[in-house]
Formats: sequence, structure tokens, C-alpha cells
Amino acid sequence: MTQAVRHDAMRARNLALVLGEVSARGSVTRAALAEITGLAKTTVSKLIADLIEAGLVVETGVVRAGERGRPGMEVRISGLSVAAIGLEINVDYLAAHVVDLSRSVRLRRAHPVDNRLAPPGDVIANLQHLALSVVDEAVDIGLRVVGGVLAVPGTVDLATGTVRRAPNMGWRDVPLLSLLRMPFPMRVDNEANLAALGELWFGAGHTDFLHVSGEIGVGAGLVVRGELFRGFRGFAGELGHVVVSPGGPPCHCGGRGCLERYAGQDALLSAAGLAPTAPPSGETAPRLPASSGPDKTTPRLPASSGSGGETPPRLPASSVPPIPAQGPRPGAGIAELLRRLEAGDSDALAACERAGWALGIALTSAVNLVDPERIVLGGIYAPLFPWIGGVVTETLAARLGEMREVVPSVEVSRLGTEAAPLGAAGQVIQQIIADPAGLLNA
Amino acid sequence: MTQAVRHDAMRARNLALVLGEVSARGSVTRAALAEITGLAKTTVSKLIADLIEAGLVVETGVVRAGERGRPGMEVRISGLSVAAIGLEINVDYLAAHVVDLSRSVRLRRAHPVDNRLAPPGDVIANLQHLALSVVDEAVDIGLRVVGGVLAVPGTVDLATGTVRRAPNMGWRDVPLLSLLRMPFPMRVDNEANLAALGELWFGAGHTDFLHVSGEIGVGAGLVVRGELFRGFRGFAGELGHVVVSPGGPPCHCGGRGCLERYAGQDALLSAAGLAPTAPPSGETAPRLPASSGPDKTTPRLPASSGSGGETPPRLPASSVPPIPAQGPRPGAGIAELLRRLEAGDSDALAACERAGWALGIALTSAVNLVDPERIVLGGIYAPLFPWIGGVVTETLAARLGEMREVVPSVEVSRLGTEAAPLGAAGQVIQQIIADPAGLLNA
Repeated sequence: MTQAVRHDAMRARNLALVLGEVSARGSVTRAALAEITGLAKTTVSKLIADLIEAGLVVETGVVRAGERGRPGMEVRISGLSVAAIGLEINVDYLAAHVVDLSRSVRLRRAHPVDNRLAPPGDVIANLQHLALSVVDEAVDIGLRVVGGVLAVPGTVDLATGTVRRAPNMGWRDVPLLSLLRMPFPMRVDNEANLAALGELWFGAGHTDFLHVSGEIGVGAGLVVRGELFRGFRGFAGELGHVVVSPGGPPCHCGGRGCLERYAGQDALLSAAGLAPTAPPSGETAPRLPASSGPDKTTPRLPASSGSGGETPPRLPASSVPPIPAQGPRPGAGIAELLRRLEAGDSDALAACERAGWALGIALTSAVNLVDPERIVLGGIYAPLFPWIGGVVTETLAARLGEMREVVPSVEVSRLGTEAAPLGAAGQVIQQIIADPAGLLNA
Repeated sequence: MTQAVRHDAMRARNLALVLGEVSARGSVTRAALAEITGLAKTTVSKLIADLIEAGLVVETGVVRAGERGRPGMEVRISGLSVAAIGLEINVDYLAAHVVDLSRSVRLRRAHPVDNRLAPPGDVIANLQHLALSVVDEAVDIGLRVVGGVLAVPGTVDLATGTVRRAPNMGWRDVPLLSLLRMPFPMRVDNEANLAALGELWFGAGHTDFLHVSGEIGVGAGLVVRGELFRGFRGFAGELGHVVVSPGGPPCHCGGRGCLERYAGQDALLSAAGLAPTAPPSGETAPRLPASSGPDKTTPRLPASSGSGGETPPRLPASSVPPIPAQGPRPGAGIAELLRRLEAGDSDALAACERAGWALGIALTSAVNLVDPERIVLGGIYAPLFPWIGGVVTETLAARLGEMREVVPSVEVSRLGTEAAPLGAAGQVIQQIIADPAGLLNA
């Protein structure tokens, strides 16, 4: 190792050390950082100057620590420059959220579209278009997106970014990462895992929980002492395929009576007498011109998109309706279900009762196996919580109460379907804080 | 901190460092230990002398490392002096195994007895008698038992050694550790957790697996990268209460259709037309005189023990039949089931088919949730493996194959019902290697 290489490695380590302390402490002076890290004050000042220049840190104001301390300028993580994008492909929507380095959510964009009807190349082209338009929007508010993670509802080979199985999409071995062309590094991860990380970083502040991600598929992410439990091959948390009733209806996964068949969005809408899976009314499935898609042999969208064999127009960024900042925007099917529930529709109420019961059965098995501190219901279960939370809690209590003094509490996620894209962006932020040197040298 | 205290703390750390390296490397010279640890050779020699004097380490012989190296005396962990005892209370037997510090199993004692008929005080008195007789036997072969762990089939508060719930024993909040009087430190832990650790330390050498402990209850222990996953409250791995069929038969746990009701030992024997749960024929439930039991208010054994209100004779140590060194000794019910299976009895075969199917359903849920590398079937499933292993594998493959390229392999434990007492003793050995100073100062 040459002296220059050693110097670079030491600088990278010290940058990470200093930025990590700034992130953990909120606001801190250079003098305090020198004391905490044991680095020389001049070294800290140089590192902070570099971090400020790269837009990772900002000065916030002068503080005087104690009566005898000299006044010092505090620094904190900057929310003004560097940002990350969290993308999501789900069965009935695409999403792209931008989070700045101080972990403030700056842009939220979701677009309902039935991705089951489209081949992977088209879905990716649409996502790429949405993502690039959101990156442009970020530039308009002074943010530079430096990396992203894409959430998908299936099992993912993290090393290659290939989706192994996404049964609700009908995907198998889709090399998603290599099909996606973004002007910054990207990774691909499982939607339910990222939603659990979203809950960890942007949710209620708990560090031990099982987060349930209710979508057309149902997934879960187990967080233990602030870390995601992934399992040996990275495929843990497939709550949707926990067996509720072994002779129940067949599932896309090859099994029978899986939770998804009772409590997934389609099952829930069907049971309530609503049409599942159709694209929300009035929305079409927009698509980039095939020439700009990564896979030119991809067949067109079916006629239901309204574009026939014609090249549909590019999706203008303004046609992507912003979702309310306070929470997720449910799809049209769930919105109608919510209206019926509020009106006291008996089919809708019975459908939620059944879904909540099935969720309670699957969670009984999950609690017996992994013993989480608490359960957080997210995705579509967040808006539906008033109608399913009680049944889930009762089912758990009835089946677990004899074995356990404390049955894990069942709580509602404040993030709903936003958890996955937020967790995706949050992963990039974590990575930058853990290793800022790459960004400074770029 | 005084200088003496600092010196003691440093010596304790160095003893652990040196003993840990000896344990990891098998055999090693003092010179090599000095090089590995960075300690001075004279310091290493002094530490090794102390460890030899305490019986933790022995010299094994002179080696010459390389052509130019000076000859050195190698040392290794001693199997000649210090030992640990692993105890188990299960529903239909008690066990006490002694393992020496080099992790050789030196004594194996199991005693069939129906503990469901006896109050906790009597069970503990019987266990204590068995344990003390085994400790005496250990003395006869030159071993000094310095600590023990007790395995129980229920949820345990590790901090207090209280059994919270043991539904198959009918126990609730039994302060087991405080009732047990042994002449060395003891801890209490869950049987399925200890069985998984037994498989880790004494089994096939894998570091990532879900170990299934088939007894009257069914438990599991998940080992991830060589560490046991315990869950937030320490109650993970309750595979026996994973829901196989939500409307199935009621279970002691308060739930319905739990795995135990299909694949636990009693369910299996019943389905095969054999009487479950009775004490093995010819055996009585022996008991210590009440005066030597820790709880003098404990009522006597019921009349079925054959002793009425009389004080039964002390159990002579020689009446505890040694179990074969090569594997577990199945209870009489399982032994009869095995005879019938070998004879091709259709009820016995159908019972195993049903149990294997139920195990496959519960393991489908477990694999979906925790994604283990492999599944190891232990306890009574070890001798029954030829009749249930295939069905389990087929059920998993049929239900998981679409979602996963690789379905976890289903393997047989070589330890069977011995895994829990071995894991219990192994925990003490781990503790001694990690912190030998306490033993040297004692």
C-alpha cells in the first residue's frame, strides 16, 4: 500500500467517523467533534470543510457550551443539496420519492397503473420516465439525486439486482438492475424489506417490530434491534405465503391457502364485491415510446391502454398527481372500499373481518416463530386499520394469550404504502453517511 | 479503580484471550500463542501455567514448527478435569448428560417418567436426585462438574430462571431455578433453543439451520451464522404452535390446529392407534423423599406411581439405564411405533404421513418467514425420519418451489433427543472458555 493510498483510506475513515457523529448528534461543534473522535481540531476542521463543500454538512449557528466554553459554530447534516431517490414498482402503481440527506421527504410521486398487463420492459420504461421527471423536479428545488434503490414485490438477488420471483407480476428472473438506466448508482431490493426499513427510519421510532406490507401481495419485514432480518438467502418475511388454511385456494406461489389469498388487496376487494386488479378508473397505463425503453423487443401494452398499436405520448410530469403529504394515496379500489366501509356496507365489513382474521392467523404463526416486540400494519392495512386492526388483535390474543404474558401490540403505520419508497431512499442516505468519501471524490 | 483491580481485569481478559485461541486452534505452542495474541512470551507462559493448574489446559507433546523453529510444547483444552452438566426436564423423561471441557460427551443418563402426573416440586426433586447421582459418577471418572444448564419444554424468563408457560407440563410461572439446589451455578433455558445449540456444537457442523425438536411438544431453534435467534422476549421458535389448520383441534396453548396437535408425540401415537402419554411400561415415576425436596408443601405423586401415600425409595443410580452412546433412546411409545413402522403397519404409516404433512405445512410458513439455509429434524423425528422425512420434503417442495429456486434441504439430526442436554452442557463450556477467570479464582 503506497503512502497516498494509506492517506486516502485514513481520510475516508475519518470522513465517515465525523459525518456519523454529526448525523447521530443532530448539531455539534468542531471542538466537540474533536473531543468525541479523538482527532486533532485542525483535522476535524479540514474534514468538515470538505463535507461542507460537498454539500453534506451545513453550519447552523454559534453556540456557547457552558459558561467557560468558547463559542463554536455548530454543523449538521445538510438538507439543501444531496438527495436520494426511492423507487417502487408494485402490481398496481409506480412510485418515486425523493429524500434529502437530512432525511426530510422532499418529493412524493405515485402513479396508479396495472403492471400485470405489461411486460417488464414496459414497466421499467415507465418507471424510468417517472423517475427522471422526479429527478428533474428535484433539481428545480436545488437537490442533486446521487443514488437510488428500487423496491419490487418479489424475491431479489441483491448482488445482481435480478428479480427472482414476483408471482403477482408474473415475473421470473428479470434482470431489473441491468435494464434500468439511471444517471446514478441504483440497487434493487424487496418491497416488504424496504417498507420495514422505511418504518424504522421514517416511522414511529421503534427499533424492534414486524412490519406488514399489505399490497396486492402481502410481505413483512422483521426489524431486530434496528437491523433488518433477511434470512439465509435474503428471502425472509414472505408473510403473504404463510399458510392460513392448507386446503385453501391455490396461490400464484404454487401453494394453497396462503395469507395473500385471504388478505391481499385483490382478495379483499373481491370479497367486498369490488372488481380487483383493474387499473383505477380514468387512468390509462402510460408508456414511454418503445425506442427509449431498454428492451426494444418488448411487445406493446395491450389494447386496454387505449393506445392500440400507436406510440403513446410521453407521460408529462405534471400528469403524475402528487399524493397528499400526510399519507398514502390509496388506489381507486381501496378508496371505494373505504367509502363503503364508512357507509357501513355489510359485504365490505365482512371482507375486512375475514382479511383481519386471516392476518391474525398468519401473525399467530409469525409471533410464535420470531417473537417480535410489536406488529406494525402498513400498506393498504394502514387506511383499513379501523376495520381490521381489532380483528387482528383479537385473533392474536385468543391464540397466543395462554403461551405469552404479553401479546405483541398491533399498531398502524403512519406511512402506509409510502414506506417502501421511503425505505429505499433511506438506504441510500444510510450508505452516504456510512461512506461519504466516494461522493466527495466523485 | 485500584491498581490491583486493573491488574485482575487485565489478567481475566488475557486468560480469556489465550484460552479462546487454544480452543479455536485445537493444539498450539506457547510461542505461537505469544505471536497470535501479541502478549509477551513470559506472560503467555504464566497464563498457561495457571490454566494448566486449574485443569483447563493440558500439554500434549513437543512439536517443531518448520525447520528453523525451536521445538515447543503444544497445549490443548483439557478433557481430564473440568466438566459441565446438561439437564433436561421433558414431559415424559428426565435427562442428565456430562460433557468435559474438550466437548467430549462423557456421561449420558435418561430416565423415562411421566412428569405430567407430578407437581413441579416432585419433578425437580427427581431431577436433582438424577443430577447428583450423575455428578457423583463424574467424580468417579475424574471430572469436576462446575456448572449446568437445565432445558425445559416451555417459555423461560432467562434472567430469573422462571418457567413462564409449559403447557404440556401444565406449568405456569414456576420459579425453577430457585427450586433447584445444585452445588454449582445453574441456568434454565428453553428445550428447543438448547437443542438447536446442541446441533450447532455437537451435530453435523452447520452454522445456519432451523432445528426442529420433536417431543410431546414441538419446538424449533433458528441458528443464524452460528448464533441462536431468540426473538424480542426470548420466545422465538415456538414451531409447535404455528397454525396448520385454523379450525383444527384445540391446543393446550389456547389456540387451535397447532402443529403439535398433528405432529407432536402424543398426536402421532394416537393416530397410530398407540396409547399416548402413559409412562413406559414397567417404569414407575420414582420420587425423592419429600423431606429432601426443595418444596415441602408439594403434594405426593398420585396413586398411579404405586407408592400411595408412602415415601417411595430413593432412586438408586444403577436403576437409571444408560442410553446407547450412538443415539437417543426413544421412549417406549416411540419404540413400539418404530416396530410397527418396520413391520409395515398401515395405521403407523398413515400417522407418520399425516404428521410429516403437517410438519411440512408448518415448515412452509417457517421457511417463508425466516428463510433458513437448511432444516434439521431432531428429537423423535430423528428415529422416525425414514417415515416422515420424505413427506416433509415433498410438502415443502410443492408449496415453496415456485417462489424459491432452492428449497431448504430437510436433514436428520444425529443427536435426536440428546440435542437439548448436550446444548445445555455446551452452553456452560462456552461460558468457561469465554471467561475462565471466575473458575481460576474460585
